[in-house]
Amino acid sequence: MFKSAQSVERLIAELTRLPGIGRKTAQRLTFWILKMKKDDAARLAQAILDVKEKVRRCSICSNITETEPCHICLDSKRDRTTVCVVEEANDVLALEKSGEYRGLYHVLEGALSPLDGIGPEKLRFKELVDRIGSGVKEVIIATNPNVEGEATAVYISKLMKPLRVKVTRIARGLPVGSDLEYADQSTLSKALQGRQEF
Amino acid sequence: MFKSAQSVERLIAELTRLPGIGRKTAQRLTFWILKMKKDDAARLAQAILDVKEKVRRCSICSNITETEPCHICLDSKRDRTTVCVVEEANDVLALEKSGEYRGLYHVLEGALSPLDGIGPEKLRFKELVDRIGSGVKEVIIATNPNVEGEATAVYISKLMKPLRVKVTRIARGLPVGSDLEYADQSTLSKALQGRQEF
Repeated sequence: MFKSAQSVERLIAELTRLPGIGRKTAQRLTFWILKMKKDDAARLAQAILDVKEKVRRCSICSNITETEPCHICLDSKRDRTTVCVVEEANDVLALEKSGEYRGLYHVLEGALSPLDGIGPEKLRFKELVDRIGSGVKEVIIATNPNVEGEATAVYISKLMKPLRVKVTRIARGLPVGSDLEYADQSTLSKALQGRQEF
Repeated sequence: MFKSAQSVERLIAELTRLPGIGRKTAQRLTFWILKMKKDDAARLAQAILDVKEKVRRCSICSNITETEPCHICLDSKRDRTTVCVVEEANDVLALEKSGEYRGLYHVLEGALSPLDGIGPEKLRFKELVDRIGSGVKEVIIATNPNVEGEATAVYISKLMKPLRVKVTRIARGLPVGSDLEYADQSTLSKALQGRQEF
């Protein structure tokens, strides 16, 4: 197969390693970068390096952060009696955007998945248990509503039982703006089970 | 709106500037890069810098290259009597992949588009005319089969008229593997006009 200039091929190859980017998209991005101003390309490269250099995980909640602890754990205005358990740091970003939640977080760094070799020892359950002592009254389980997330939720609820803390699970139901007609069976049954007084 | 760590936000912003990458995709890529090995991220950043540092345009055909002139213009095995005119350097890549063409190229660096302020003076027409003297017998116009590309093709054919050189246009017709039933009217009429003896 014909190859373009060596450095062009290398950039295409590097971009192809990113998720959802195939050879054609990588090629398009590469030609775009070739047409970019040099300063803009340098800024993009620097941003990639910076993110690896500066970002670490908060020692308390394991959210991604540039400070230690992260600004959420540090924020005295937040409700320290509630901890929301999520699988990944991007879930924190999604929940914060909703503006609905003012408590703390706990990032597990994954979900239980025995088939992929991810057992309880690989996730941050121990750290979660350790945090409960310090005045936490409610643990909100916000793992994903799929097989792994549900299994993880069950595991957490069992783990919390002896600790006498309130454990809740975020509601599963119809997404806002969706169509009842096209909702799948499991979502509908969860929506019915979770119905609330009007 | 809630913002994540500063360097994370900056990388998301930089990625959003790329074509076809919105905020959500940029966020997904950023979290992927956060999870990458540091060496891999450094290689990606270096590849971006390298491409800007090492790649230039060939002084003869304006194809992207790391050498001067490019390896196609330098290749003594290629047919120097044929020049294929394309809009962009990625078109060269596409044609080379077909393996069908063994002549030289001429990259215009765009197509005529008066509405976008791209007139003949912005494209490499003069350089094309200058090249014709040196033994070129055929100019193949391979601009895109859209309004701008067709206008550019007409312009080139007029430009070539006084130079007594054969001017051809790549065939427009049904793409291989497509369905006649779903072909649009213009493609079908071009396919009929361009019919060849079986």
